[in-house]
Amino acid sequence: MSYSEFVMTSLETAGAEEGDTLEIVSGKRSYKGVLMPHHEFSHPDVIVIKMKSGYNIGVKLSAGSKVSVIEKREAKMKPARPQRSDDNLKTIAVIGTGGTIASYVDYRTGAVHPALSADDMVGAVPEISSICNVKARVLFSIFSENMDPECWVAIAKAVKEELSNGADAVIIPHGTDTMGYTSAALSFMLDGLDKPVVLVGAQRSSDRPSSDSYTNLIAAARFCIETSMPGVFVLMHETLSDTTAVVHKGTRVRKMHTSRRDAFKSINSSPVARINFEGKIEMLCDETPKPAASLVVKDVLERKVALLQFHPSMDVELFKELMLKHRGIVIAGSGLGHVSTPMVKALSEVVKAGTAVIMTSQCLSGSVNLNVYATGRDLINAGVVPVGDMLPETALVKLMWVLGQTSDMKEAARMMTENLRGEISQRREIDG
Amino acid sequence: MSYSEFVMTSLETAGAEEGDTLEIVSGKRSYKGVLMPHHEFSHPDVIVIKMKSGYNIGVKLSAGSKVSVIEKREAKMKPARPQRSDDNLKTIAVIGTGGTIASYVDYRTGAVHPALSADDMVGAVPEISSICNVKARVLFSIFSENMDPECWVAIAKAVKEELSNGADAVIIPHGTDTMGYTSAALSFMLDGLDKPVVLVGAQRSSDRPSSDSYTNLIAAARFCIETSMPGVFVLMHETLSDTTAVVHKGTRVRKMHTSRRDAFKSINSSPVARINFEGKIEMLCDETPKPAASLVVKDVLERKVALLQFHPSMDVELFKELMLKHRGIVIAGSGLGHVSTPMVKALSEVVKAGTAVIMTSQCLSGSVNLNVYATGRDLINAGVVPVGDMLPETALVKLMWVLGQTSDMKEAARMMTENLRGEISQRREIDG
Repeated sequence: MSYSEFVMTSLETAGAEEGDTLEIVSGKRSYKGVLMPHHEFSHPDVIVIKMKSGYNIGVKLSAGSKVSVIEKREAKMKPARPQRSDDNLKTIAVIGTGGTIASYVDYRTGAVHPALSADDMVGAVPEISSICNVKARVLFSIFSENMDPECWVAIAKAVKEELSNGADAVIIPHGTDTMGYTSAALSFMLDGLDKPVVLVGAQRSSDRPSSDSYTNLIAAARFCIETSMPGVFVLMHETLSDTTAVVHKGTRVRKMHTSRRDAFKSINSSPVARINFEGKIEMLCDETPKPAASLVVKDVLERKVALLQFHPSMDVELFKELMLKHRGIVIAGSGLGHVSTPMVKALSEVVKAGTAVIMTSQCLSGSVNLNVYATGRDLINAGVVPVGDMLPETALVKLMWVLGQTSDMKEAARMMTENLRGEISQRREIDG
Repeated sequence: MSYSEFVMTSLETAGAEEGDTLEIVSGKRSYKGVLMPHHEFSHPDVIVIKMKSGYNIGVKLSAGSKVSVIEKREAKMKPARPQRSDDNLKTIAVIGTGGTIASYVDYRTGAVHPALSADDMVGAVPEISSICNVKARVLFSIFSENMDPECWVAIAKAVKEELSNGADAVIIPHGTDTMGYTSAALSFMLDGLDKPVVLVGAQRSSDRPSSDSYTNLIAAARFCIETSMPGVFVLMHETLSDTTAVVHKGTRVRKMHTSRRDAFKSINSSPVARINFEGKIEMLCDETPKPAASLVVKDVLERKVALLQFHPSMDVELFKELMLKHRGIVIAGSGLGHVSTPMVKALSEVVKAGTAVIMTSQCLSGSVNLNVYATGRDLINAGVVPVGDMLPETALVKLMWVLGQTSDMKEAARMMTENLRGEISQRREIDG
């Protein structure tokens, strides 16, 4: 969607181009700011300007609006100055992978491609240079639905490289669609991690007035510097308002809304911390940090692992055929982790044929328990492995990783039920 | 799990049997009530008694507890009296299908099989006879993970039969595991429904002190009688406390917790009503009821329809093979309804081969929108049909039903995107 003809004409008449500083007078109100690129998300009658405060606002142009250029952008386009490093500050490596959040670099160039350089970033988020030194690189720039296990490996290696080269933390801007899968993958692959690795996304691209790109990025930097908490985390807005972000454990987080800024939720676990954008960082769970170890990237992943949600129409024969072609299957069963009686039989055959079958719940919240009903006990007898309150997506990624570490199915089952990265609660005593 | 040896000895010494009225003195406290059957859920040291108030409580026996029999059950086992019909009251048909809720009938007999008769029911929930006449039957008695499309058809026919025979409403006790799938199926199959049909479940079997069986059942009867609202609904506890239930639209409800009493949530829609257990019924959304029509059971369902959640490790070739063996596929895509680029290509081939492909989101909340990113537009070009904010499970059931009504793929796509039973919001204007 482009600008309406009316807006196009208004901007042309004023000679206004992206990057120019404009004044818009509309009735008794007037606004000053730099004209941002138009984005396909935006209303055709709205122009977005970045005000001196750093906030973007959308202004709807109407017949009475007057647009004038105060300063042409050429005057502002200084040559990129080399980033100065402040020896008193810690260093955060930023590894760009793409996604909505990475589009904030487009502000100055007007381009819509998601590129990211250290200078772009510091320029777009000047506040960050008072928090840390930033060492940024673009690893790749893809939609997160195209993020595959090879990408996970590349990111894990890049993280290790940056930390080995002296970074105190790593921030990974990432598309939100599959951010939970990637955070789980990094959680398992980065063995012995003793520094913060924070994936950060945005639900609104940065040319939108309501963008959460900057605030999330700055909050991530503050979290890394102020807590130094080791582990893989996801940081996103906590609510619809622009006041706090929360930090989720990388193995416990799920995108639970297609578009809202508070889409990411910790499931079966408390978030780790709340970052107030104006104030302090509040720790929300006390974890005993594991003793420091040396970081090893365990990056062998079994690809032939799939996630299947049990549902009443499921054709048992067709799905059995599919499952037999995999090394591992994660089922999102119904309720406490159930499937129909014919499917229990099929799973038993699949297990006998050497495929690992793991049981989670499509309810997402709560724990599977195969000891309550007869169907559940039949599943246990069939060799299906229940994994407590682990998310189906985390179980999928963990199974890929576990089957990359061992080919012994008993050992794989043991590892799946062991809490390695905060992904599963200790087996609770359920009555009876 | 059976009683502990200690409890067994205590009961034997007292000569206490299930159904007997007991007095238990434990320290300064004493409890009187009818001994309920022991259930595998219960703690081995706890006996459950039903008190005069109708509430069940669990009493933990300890060394100091004294158990004595006040009245033997024989004295209470009157021959079942034929249920009297009160001409001033409306009639509700209760169609038993099994599940945790149906176990409340076991109270009097001591058996654990989930049977249900009118007399059992009125006996177990005496309050209901002041609300309505109950006409109950057992259709079947199965775990809900075994509820398949044939069961849906049988239930739909039974509902039609009861309503044709003069019932003013139908209540269907149902296992909770797949209750959302069944409620969606009935919503579509019962065309022209002008009376309430309420599925009701329980998360705690009725011999547990915290059972939600009775309260949900009575709340369902009150909802039917006091509102007469036409449609298919699910009624379950609203919160963890025993104070309110909510009524969900049959097409908008999902089990979101494996074990909590407030497991059921309306997604992308408000619940229809809140039933205060002590007070009034609060309507939560104003729907214009559709003009009354005559009820027709449209029970042709296409079985070869499957639900698949997109995930990064998905083997595109293997899943394409599976999809080609189906008449319809519902994808739970990432975010706004995305899949990887290779999967877009595979879906395009699947559509070309004549399989309907519908796009929903694994986020569950929010709406898919394939017009925002390039991947989405490629999916539209591939012939994939986005269905707004419809739940993946509802889309699955609806697609089975739609493909039972038409073999014309264009007509099927039209029907899938049309709001037939409150399952999809009107296409909102999303900016851009």
